[in-house]
Amino acid sequence: MTLHEAIAELATFNDDPGAGGITREAFTPTYERALEYVARRMREAGLEARRDAFGNLYGRLEGADPALPCVRTGSHFDTTLNAGAYDGVVGVLGAIEAVAALRASGRPVRRAIEVVAFAGEEPRFGTGCIGSRAVMGDLTRDDLDRMVDRDGVSLAAALSGAGLDPDAIADAAWDPEEVHAFLELHIEQGIVLESSGDQIGIVDAIAAPHDVRVRLTGAADHAGATPMSLRRDALAGAAEAMVELERLAAGSPSGTTVGTVGVLRLAPGAINVVPGVVELDVDVRDSDPDARRAVVEAFLAGVGAIAARRGLGVEVEEIVRDEPRQCAPFVVEACEQACASLGARGRHMISGAYHDALILARQVPVGMLFVPSRGGVSHHPDEHTDAEDIDRGTAVLREALAQLAR
Amino acid sequence: MTLHEAIAELATFNDDPGAGGITREAFTPTYERALEYVARRMREAGLEARRDAFGNLYGRLEGADPALPCVRTGSHFDTTLNAGAYDGVVGVLGAIEAVAALRASGRPVRRAIEVVAFAGEEPRFGTGCIGSRAVMGDLTRDDLDRMVDRDGVSLAAALSGAGLDPDAIADAAWDPEEVHAFLELHIEQGIVLESSGDQIGIVDAIAAPHDVRVRLTGAADHAGATPMSLRRDALAGAAEAMVELERLAAGSPSGTTVGTVGVLRLAPGAINVVPGVVELDVDVRDSDPDARRAVVEAFLAGVGAIAARRGLGVEVEEIVRDEPRQCAPFVVEACEQACASLGARGRHMISGAYHDALILARQVPVGMLFVPSRGGVSHHPDEHTDAEDIDRGTAVLREALAQLAR
Repeated sequence: MTLHEAIAELATFNDDPGAGGITREAFTPTYERALEYVARRMREAGLEARRDAFGNLYGRLEGADPALPCVRTGSHFDTTLNAGAYDGVVGVLGAIEAVAALRASGRPVRRAIEVVAFAGEEPRFGTGCIGSRAVMGDLTRDDLDRMVDRDGVSLAAALSGAGLDPDAIADAAWDPEEVHAFLELHIEQGIVLESSGDQIGIVDAIAAPHDVRVRLTGAADHAGATPMSLRRDALAGAAEAMVELERLAAGSPSGTTVGTVGVLRLAPGAINVVPGVVELDVDVRDSDPDARRAVVEAFLAGVGAIAARRGLGVEVEEIVRDEPRQCAPFVVEACEQACASLGARGRHMISGAYHDALILARQVPVGMLFVPSRGGVSHHPDEHTDAEDIDRGTAVLREALAQLAR
Repeated sequence: MTLHEAIAELATFNDDPGAGGITREAFTPTYERALEYVARRMREAGLEARRDAFGNLYGRLEGADPALPCVRTGSHFDTTLNAGAYDGVVGVLGAIEAVAALRASGRPVRRAIEVVAFAGEEPRFGTGCIGSRAVMGDLTRDDLDRMVDRDGVSLAAALSGAGLDPDAIADAAWDPEEVHAFLELHIEQGIVLESSGDQIGIVDAIAAPHDVRVRLTGAADHAGATPMSLRRDALAGAAEAMVELERLAAGSPSGTTVGTVGVLRLAPGAINVVPGVVELDVDVRDSDPDARRAVVEAFLAGVGAIAARRGLGVEVEEIVRDEPRQCAPFVVEACEQACASLGARGRHMISGAYHDALILARQVPVGMLFVPSRGGVSHHPDEHTDAEDIDRGTAVLREALAQLAR
């Protein structure tokens, strides 16, 4: 079976095929069946498969010197709602392919190489990268109860449902001493490579999100009988806040800040009732931490002023605040050499999107490789990367891993 | 059992008691059980109960001359989500009480009086007043399939679930020749009576909604990897449109226009994805049809300009457009005389809210009586009308019905 057949087969594990894209959120029964499929691919590639206490999946190729710190590579195969077939998947199935090819070539490998598929990179439970956070020891038992999905299912309940023990997640933590480097192959999810005509993105730094939940509380009055002057309309306040967020992000001096409201909940939600409560999940990102901080602070000050003028209550909860990270120079160099050895046109760039490698970079040396995304489209059924770009990325990954594990 | 005990008992038919208010949407099992309760109250009051082909409930007190056109009175007992105990309910249980008292008094009644509880005044299926629309012959079989609730359940399926035959709804139509007048008692859902200290609102005209659904379509791009300048964010466009709606309604020359977005749906709905599609359900009302039209037209022109500037697709679907209506002078006069005979302080006013009486006014003479709403709060758990105000409104209704049926 080719890598491309495997990508197509993994895409059939889908909770909402009628929508046109792929819906495979972490820890659902469909995800669990997909995990079994990926584990089988690992074993067929000659890797020893195991699952950790948080449900992250590993496939190990033993090295000549098992006592040396290992090289890890991988990504995730959970998706957002109605998403594409490549985000994360290319980095998991491509890594299995790369390691299998390395093994088949008979080239000497001193360090063990482990392919990792992290659980829950996409934010089903509000926060992304929970699998990599778990291996960094970031998640407490309380977090598992506190984090809930849009249906109110807690992360703890989802773990139990997948046969995992929420009380045992500390066992998933990595010992950084045992990891020489982590290298993640991923689709770009942007149009930098497409615009420049380069084939491989060699990532120097990863931008990071500061996400907050803003809750505005007004009065759920009758939409017919309540004059405009007497309203405390939470959605009208939220609308003004969203206009302000867009203005601030677009005008940020770094030129790379982005601001998004991707989730909006309102209550009671009837056409004849003024919205009494609105919650906005706000995502602000940059590789420049100062510019990001300035936008978040100005936005929250603006929300405060809007709420005060309209007589709305306002509560702000931090969902996540991750620091942008630099990739490790020796991993970046391995990627450069891999491109050079294969004649691939590599380009240094930053990652605007958020990845498991960002979380891991706090404790272990990381790097990332990007392959082009057609039109920059991602988290959408139209997400696409050409087969030859995936093959080239997988070959570059193979060479970089050979270099790192040598 | 007193009227107030009956109101409290009806409030226990509730699909979401944990939320603090009452959720009893039309045609749900909980609604059906509540309907059985109201029918029992009718029979205990000496009325003959029957249900029509759309599920509207009638309780008839026969008149001395059954051949004369009858007088009808009533309202509804379905609710919005997490609503109060009085909206509609006062007009149903109060009418039963008024007719029972009239019967007990032994006063002569030439015309039959029928208490009606209309099904689906609240817009579970997007459009309100579907019970009264059905008796006016407005609903086609196609409408029943087209109209769906927020879970995608069609009105046809809901009718079937309640044991009704969607193919038979034409049987519910009234013959206007058989109706002398319709008089609805209702809570004000505003603060006009509370502000003036009057006890009874005698309604001269009923404002009406023009509701549209606006669908904006952009691109569901990655929230991290898509620069602000390359986005087509449907929610950012919707935010701008909502700010515009509020500005137009507040500045309307009539001074009585209101504009509300009570429902907002977005897709895909993840914190790390730019919203690709947003739907807004927009409600604009006035008793002045020219002012209302001007606001709707300016709003839709504004939406078109916003969408064009942002590269968004825009579709507009009309949900409902009802014309404001005048009450019948002889019904208004009966209400005035009833107030005078009881020494109640009545006040002429318009209804900002939307009622079954508005729909019926197209074919039969209507009137409305309001009792005060504390703080104007409605469609909310805090909705309240004092027991003595309800008793006074019920007595005024009784006297007006006696006059109309004489």
